[in-house]
Amino acid sequence: MTALPSVSNSITARIELPGRATAVSELTGAVERNGGLVTALDITHSDNARMTIDVTAAARDADHAAELVAAMRAVEGVEIHKVSDRTFLAHLGGKLSIESKVPIRNRDDLSMVYTPGVARVCLDIAENPDDARRLTIKRNTVAVVTDGTAVLGLGDIGPLAALPVMEGKAALFKRFAGIDAFPLCLDTKDTEEIIRTVKAVAPVFAGINLEDISAPRCFEIERRLRDELDIPVFHDDQHGTAIVVLAALRNALRVVGKELSEVRIVQSGAGAAGTAIALLLSAAGATDIVLSDINGVVEPERDDIKSAPDSALAKLAATTNPGRVTGTLKDAVRGADVFIGVSAPNLLNGDDIAGMADDAIVFALANPDPEVDPTAAAEHATVVATGRSDFANQINNVLIFPGVFRGLLDAAASRVTTHVMLAAAEALADVVKPEELNPAYIVPSVFHPDVSKVVARAVADAVRADEGDEHA
Amino acid sequence: MTALPSVSNSITARIELPGRATAVSELTGAVERNGGLVTALDITHSDNARMTIDVTAAARDADHAAELVAAMRAVEGVEIHKVSDRTFLAHLGGKLSIESKVPIRNRDDLSMVYTPGVARVCLDIAENPDDARRLTIKRNTVAVVTDGTAVLGLGDIGPLAALPVMEGKAALFKRFAGIDAFPLCLDTKDTEEIIRTVKAVAPVFAGINLEDISAPRCFEIERRLRDELDIPVFHDDQHGTAIVVLAALRNALRVVGKELSEVRIVQSGAGAAGTAIALLLSAAGATDIVLSDINGVVEPERDDIKSAPDSALAKLAATTNPGRVTGTLKDAVRGADVFIGVSAPNLLNGDDIAGMADDAIVFALANPDPEVDPTAAAEHATVVATGRSDFANQINNVLIFPGVFRGLLDAAASRVTTHVMLAAAEALADVVKPEELNPAYIVPSVFHPDVSKVVARAVADAVRADEGDEHA
Repeated sequence: MTALPSVSNSITARIELPGRATAVSELTGAVERNGGLVTALDITHSDNARMTIDVTAAARDADHAAELVAAMRAVEGVEIHKVSDRTFLAHLGGKLSIESKVPIRNRDDLSMVYTPGVARVCLDIAENPDDARRLTIKRNTVAVVTDGTAVLGLGDIGPLAALPVMEGKAALFKRFAGIDAFPLCLDTKDTEEIIRTVKAVAPVFAGINLEDISAPRCFEIERRLRDELDIPVFHDDQHGTAIVVLAALRNALRVVGKELSEVRIVQSGAGAAGTAIALLLSAAGATDIVLSDINGVVEPERDDIKSAPDSALAKLAATTNPGRVTGTLKDAVRGADVFIGVSAPNLLNGDDIAGMADDAIVFALANPDPEVDPTAAAEHATVVATGRSDFANQINNVLIFPGVFRGLLDAAASRVTTHVMLAAAEALADVVKPEELNPAYIVPSVFHPDVSKVVARAVADAVRADEGDEHA
Repeated sequence: MTALPSVSNSITARIELPGRATAVSELTGAVERNGGLVTALDITHSDNARMTIDVTAAARDADHAAELVAAMRAVEGVEIHKVSDRTFLAHLGGKLSIESKVPIRNRDDLSMVYTPGVARVCLDIAENPDDARRLTIKRNTVAVVTDGTAVLGLGDIGPLAALPVMEGKAALFKRFAGIDAFPLCLDTKDTEEIIRTVKAVAPVFAGINLEDISAPRCFEIERRLRDELDIPVFHDDQHGTAIVVLAALRNALRVVGKELSEVRIVQSGAGAAGTAIALLLSAAGATDIVLSDINGVVEPERDDIKSAPDSALAKLAATTNPGRVTGTLKDAVRGADVFIGVSAPNLLNGDDIAGMADDAIVFALANPDPEVDPTAAAEHATVVATGRSDFANQINNVLIFPGVFRGLLDAAASRVTTHVMLAAAEALADVVKPEELNPAYIVPSVFHPDVSKVVARAVADAVRADEGDEHA
């Protein structure tokens, strides 16, 4: 599978070239012959002899972009003035700003927004802490917290290098749910220190979104924060992924006419996402889930698992794999109804998919290269989904985290329960109407206008049911 | 000194009243007879018999506002529908928002702002950490950090109740210096825990503004963070105040024709602000500073100071008060050239000011009630300044912190030196041109358009001189 040219690897080159009739077509031809995609041409200056033109072209990656520039430079009479990388341009100065919602035009404004007027608001909150959700940013503000240890597929790149991802996440929170999210990239990998830090900064926030923290520390951090804070804590890599997978699986099962409680599900990857998926699918009624990781199928008798009986993996082994399957991923996949991969590229091939049950479902979510080539998989499976935007059925957390947090904030939730996550998955699945459902449309587009509203409403209702119950 | 009606205690009442000719004047008369100030009248509905009108009136405080409402209710035929507090209205939903600076309209945008495009930006920063100041929000982002222990004059009201002040501060950072500031209200009072937390969150920020943290913990917290972080740390209550006081004092001394190195300065208050003022005035060339606190003049032989030789106060006693003055504040003030109060209301009276040297300078900065009634002080002193906006010469930190941080950020400073603070004070003082200077105009208005730009330039130059030197 060769990567396609992508806007995320776009360059814009300012080029001066002779005013001859064929000059522009020679230039675009050079880009296209070398596998690039010209997406925009802007002529910025022209006279009888020369013209200046901004050529925007999508490349496969940075090396390919350099090849395209070289190809354009080779066109006779061309001079390249400047090459800009569109993705880097979009990041200049960062992607977020913090704005004042109140005007400060004169002393009167100042005296309300700051001293002395603000003192009365402070005293009110000191007496009635719940008023903070009315009179401060707390009501609508979420922290996006990372330690930079498991950023995208890049691994442990540290807190500073993780910041562009967290800013992007915050931008998505605003775009899709109107939430004010602020990135906190922590300069520590110590579990206790991360827990202490998040607890210390919690007063300003109505929710905590943990992001890109590596397993197994992410489990302990999330569990402890959930227990010790009075605001919801959500690890998107775990729960966001699990909810989207459950929603997509519900619709895929509708397409093939199978029941969640009856299918055999094989998962590849038993880290943060894999564990959360297995737990949520079980809570939703799945009964036969087999996980595998780099050492093969997860089962209690596997040497490394047997020798670490208290590990997260051992607990997973004890609660999954009811048929006590052993061996490799390829062994386990044989005859399975559903494959869900959140692991590594190219672990399976078309033959493996051909060996699954009839009407197989394949979610190959490793990014950018899936566990199995989706084109090959589609020859044998009925429903295929990936994490990529250039295939049908993109399983993307952007479908879920904005709506989940919108609902949590609207209901002033104190935590995220399994009930809330199941409700979110069901609401997301139901955005695809029965008459719209088909093998290539099991999840809506992230730009579908209803998604975050529908998910938010379901989440808020579930929170009120949960938290109302316990006050009753 | 009776407080005047203030916009910060404004109410807006929606009132229905009979359509008789005198009805409105009866209503406004009732407010004014009771000491209120009608600032707006909006008729929202009128017919032959009745009218509905929104009356906005400034009161002295909440009790006074209630009196005004009662007085309006007593007007014949009047019905009061709803009373809103303008300051609380301004705070609804909080005072800040976090906005995305990049459009996310389609998949192409998404692929640049978030995955997969963002990965290249992350990798670039992982290889070149300095690029974070180019490609992330770090460049322009400051944390406003408090533990809520010394908020305005309200004391230890806790982190949540402190949030409106920190939001206001962040709004001022944006308004006066274009800086993105985010409030962090910490749920801990432990010095070590505060230090650890600020260090953990530091990667996202280009500067730390400590705020409203009580003494003496604020000294240790600031000193340690200054030593252990590679970004500037500024405690506004200490250094912001000290810089404004030095700037104002420079101009006041110009007005009376005295030299900083020759005057006797008596300070009331030896906490965070008092200590910082004494240190900065000394660095600027002052030679005779006497501090006093609730136990009298600070001097090495005072019982409580002698018995705690390692205390902050003992260090202050050793380095100030060269004439070994003893006794009370009133004793010390006799014959002094300058009085600077950052302490408590009504410690001195007109007679005390009369006993100062000729052409005395009085900065009575306790808020809202100064150390001495400024009207009484002005009968005997040549220059009088307060922290209040309803007298001439308001000494307000808003004059300095936006410009100081603007300069620190522009120069990518790693710390704030005494040299930087002296440069900031000089720049602020010089905003008042020689031909503008008079006893009632020793500092510019906070809305003076040049202030933060001029201070920022001086600060950035001083940083470059400091940090350039050490790389030379």
